[in-house]
Amino acid sequence: MIILGGSASNGLDILLSKVIGADLTKIETTKFPDGEMKVKVPELNDENVVVVQSTYSPQEKNLFELLLTCHELSRRKAKITAVIPYLAYARQNRSFTSGEAVSVDMVLDMLHAAGVRRLITVNPHKSDALAYFKGKAGIVDASKTLARAVMGQLDEPFVLAPDKGGLNLAKNAASVIKCEYTHIEKIRDNYGNVSIKKAHGGGFKGKDVIIFDDVISTGGTIALAARYAYAEGATSVCAAAVHLLMADEAYNRMKTVGVVKLFGANTIPFEKAEIADISSDIAEFIDHEKKEYD
Amino acid sequence: MIILGGSASNGLDILLSKVIGADLTKIETTKFPDGEMKVKVPELNDENVVVVQSTYSPQEKNLFELLLTCHELSRRKAKITAVIPYLAYARQNRSFTSGEAVSVDMVLDMLHAAGVRRLITVNPHKSDALAYFKGKAGIVDASKTLARAVMGQLDEPFVLAPDKGGLNLAKNAASVIKCEYTHIEKIRDNYGNVSIKKAHGGGFKGKDVIIFDDVISTGGTIALAARYAYAEGATSVCAAAVHLLMADEAYNRMKTVGVVKLFGANTIPFEKAEIADISSDIAEFIDHEKKEYD
Repeated sequence: MIILGGSASNGLDILLSKVIGADLTKIETTKFPDGEMKVKVPELNDENVVVVQSTYSPQEKNLFELLLTCHELSRRKAKITAVIPYLAYARQNRSFTSGEAVSVDMVLDMLHAAGVRRLITVNPHKSDALAYFKGKAGIVDASKTLARAVMGQLDEPFVLAPDKGGLNLAKNAASVIKCEYTHIEKIRDNYGNVSIKKAHGGGFKGKDVIIFDDVISTGGTIALAARYAYAEGATSVCAAAVHLLMADEAYNRMKTVGVVKLFGANTIPFEKAEIADISSDIAEFIDHEKKEYD
Repeated sequence: MIILGGSASNGLDILLSKVIGADLTKIETTKFPDGEMKVKVPELNDENVVVVQSTYSPQEKNLFELLLTCHELSRRKAKITAVIPYLAYARQNRSFTSGEAVSVDMVLDMLHAAGVRRLITVNPHKSDALAYFKGKAGIVDASKTLARAVMGQLDEPFVLAPDKGGLNLAKNAASVIKCEYTHIEKIRDNYGNVSIKKAHGGGFKGKDVIIFDDVISTGGTIALAARYAYAEGATSVCAAAVHLLMADEAYNRMKTVGVVKLFGANTIPFEKAEIADISSDIAEFIDHEKKEYD
């Protein structure tokens, strides 16, 4: 088995190769003056190739580099595992209104057409986001490793999921941190405005609330939850998410409402957060599945 | 038959629908704050769909919109023709050095996997660029229409191909303009520097030279040819290319060496050139092939 790292692997290629004890090689990507990229895949002395490439922004360029690489590996008859720590478009896994393209299904079809036979990603927003994939799909849960990064940093921890969908993640985190957890319920009015209905089992007085989510995009949901937690008596509010997309001034939006600290995993680069390394979680998954795949 | 226009169709969707006399519908593309796009394909009352989308910069985003659209149409069992006036990555149709991904083959596989069964493009750099496509491929030659845009604007026209590969294009153009044509020979030294060896059948004294090429990227080749033409006695030098990529200050590079005027086709938007409409060339191709395809 050999690890092949792409330009958007965010260092996870290096960490994975150390944890697994496999050789590491890099994809050579250059850019032409017109914006097209050129991908060169070095000669590899192993048919089992684990390509590591995240697909954060610019999503299509990073995905394209991965597809070019896999297509070339496929030509060489390699057995390809794609590790995509952050899988773009995983939130668009159904037509929310009539005529909408189901983007993640298209991405999964492209990966399969490029020769990917095993796909590993980390906490996609919807747990069934990979259901459509024609190859073998594996989902790594980074919530416990993320929780361990938070552990010990708060006096009176209390885990809060910003919506019902995040309850499992919060439950996992709370089991590691050994504290209470709950979720809040969002309501959406006819104009699309979101407000908070109630927290289930709440009572944040004197608590150091840590909001847990899978992904932070604009930070709007986190900001809403943080304001609510403070209004309900929280001493401090932190936030933790596996994927820190941090779009559109998300960090300032969270700072403004008093989010003290931010935690994330190394699926997406973000300098202003404390980052938990999830390479062992991914490696465990690769090892676990290796025999079956071989 | 219905025309479905993408956000990078550069108006060719509208022109094509008029020439062919087919209804036009637009792909609805919106962007999420994190940079992901959402594509919505309206309900269409025809199973024969001609999707028009060019893939100029940002190449991967424009290609992705096309792939999402075709994937959705494919789900609806539509018969998909993709008209890609400028096909990105068509110049990377072989491994120039060992290990290089053959990008155009990957793009063609993705289009096929997304359900494209007929593909029409205009003057790809290599005439066999579409050879790998698993569906039906058609190549439109826009050189005569481009030449007609130039015709009558020059007193003593003389068509010049900037290298041997462009000779066919120059020949076509010269037959329309009814003038002489030739090509120049580039030589590349050990350091990769390009200079001109000689012009075949040259003699530009008193001539209004029009350099004809398939694509202008950085304009380096055109600038080299223009300097040579002036040195060999040309009265004026213009340039014409089907695809005006105009990367990296190409326009200024050409202006600096005295290129008087620039002509192009409407496969890529570029405001500073005189643009020839090639919708009729594409329409002719669609009509010609229609019966066979149906």
